[in-house]
Amino acid sequence: MTLSGAEDEKNPFGQLIGLQFASWGDGESVCHLEVAPALLNPNGVLHGAVVYTMADTGMGGALVSALDAGQVCTTVEIKISYFRAVVAGTLRCHSRVIHRGKRIAFLEAMVYDEDALIAQATGTFAIR
Amino acid sequence: MTLSGAEDEKNPFGQLIGLQFASWGDGESVCHLEVAPALLNPNGVLHGAVVYTMADTGMGGALVSALDAGQVCTTVEIKISYFRAVVAGTLRCHSRVIHRGKRIAFLEAMVYDEDALIAQATGTFAIR
Amino acid sequence: MTLSGAEDEKNPFGQLIGLQFASWGDGESVCHLEVAPALLNPNGVLHGAVVYTMADTGMGGALVSALDAGQVCTTVEIKISYFRAVVAGTLRCHSRVIHRGKRIAFLEAMVYDEDALIAQATGTFAIR
Amino acid sequence: MTLSGAEDEKNPFGQLIGLQFASWGDGESVCHLEVAPALLNPNGVLHGAVVYTMADTGMGGALVSALDAGQVCTTVEIKISYFRAVVAGTLRCHSRVIHRGKRIAFLEAMVYDEDALIAQATGTFAIR
Repeated sequence: MTLSGAEDEKNPFGQLIGLQFASWGDGESVCHLEVAPALLNPNGVLHGAVVYTMADTGMGGALVSALDAGQVCTTVEIKISYFRAVVAGTLRCHSRVIHRGKRIAFLEAMVYDEDALIAQATGTFAIR
Repeated sequence: MTLSGAEDEKNPFGQLIGLQFASWGDGESVCHLEVAPALLNPNGVLHGAVVYTMADTGMGGALVSALDAGQVCTTVEIKISYFRAVVAGTLRCHSRVIHRGKRIAFLEAMVYDEDALIAQATGTFAIR
Repeated sequence: MTLSGAEDEKNPFGQLIGLQFASWGDGESVCHLEVAPALLNPNGVLHGAVVYTMADTGMGGALVSALDAGQVCTTVEIKISYFRAVVAGTLRCHSRVIHRGKRIAFLEAMVYDEDALIAQATGTFAIR
Repeated sequence: MTLSGAEDEKNPFGQLIGLQFASWGDGESVCHLEVAPALLNPNGVLHGAVVYTMADTGMGGALVSALDAGQVCTTVEIKISYFRAVVAGTLRCHSRVIHRGKRIAFLEAMVYDEDALIAQATGTFAIR
């Protein structure tokens, strides 16, 4: 993800899947999403890429909230691990900056359904 | 991603973003996708999660093609690295099994636009 | 890493680099290590593989402490991110189980020098 | 790993474990290592961190061989996946640059024993 300004900017792919930010600031963000039929995989389970989208977008939003004016960030790499399958309900993704250097920042995202932690992601982002 | 059978099964999230398989068999797969306005991020660049969806789905398809009847696979974790931003055109994702154990398989996906390699992903999948 | 029993078993590679466990139990562990000249890289900085060794061994120890009698674990994959270079002093690695399934467990390790967080690792382990 | 010059520079940790470069140049490297009793883990199997050391050092060497005079590289993050356990013999690690940007490069390492591929690593390196 690349973000250069306010999180309420038009984010076409985020809108397509129904991703919404509840809060972001001080290097943290919370976003959420309702599981919908169009987001399922061939087995009737939420596609893991939807969870990934929350983590990537959530970490980008968390980092943007900590950048100086005029700075932009880009995803360098993300690893995501899946703990549980999800078939319905609301997902919540909490993201935060773990370490911020001048040109590279490291973030973490934890994704929960209504009951439990379902996925963890760690990402490297470039700052320009 | 979890797949239990033929890749031409209904894949709602794959259909939502326009993902299509060109081939799959013998532990490999090729899928492609047209960049469309609904898939962009706030900066007008293809959302990295779309590239991730190709890699996750492509690796899942490659592995399913190598499974025995009745076996199912699930994504355990994936790391994806982004080399170039994409704004338009057709993407192609080549996935293959790198190593297959009894219960765990390792796959790799390389994603290209019309000019160059744009992303690499490696994934761990559980087999049941 | 593969561990089948008590952490005080002979661990030749751990001994070679001076790795010691301070505590382990209930799915967590703490290990530490003194930076020594033999552990440096060509630039006179601690070799990143030494930090990795702490994370791999520490996560293995944390998981072993949560296994049932007769169970063994093996490292499937680990991602480690480096935040700061280290040239001297004592390192401390805190590891914990993030999620434990029947056959796969997910762990996290945070490595600190005397001042700050220097690295984070997340790992997937197979349980047999 | 951080390397700023020739691979034959003193590398204390590489020497400690017996790591040697067979070749490096044009963004590639080959290094090898003999499995020795001091490199084993508590189960009598080669410690995964030794394989990681080969991958980290090998990718660093491959990247250094492609840098301009005065440039230095540092490991940002590495993911390594283990396919097989090793108990004896000679290991060989082939590393190569997958994509090189101005400030960030992406590398891959494949580690083999005498029979088969035993591990794959992908790494992000910062260039200064």
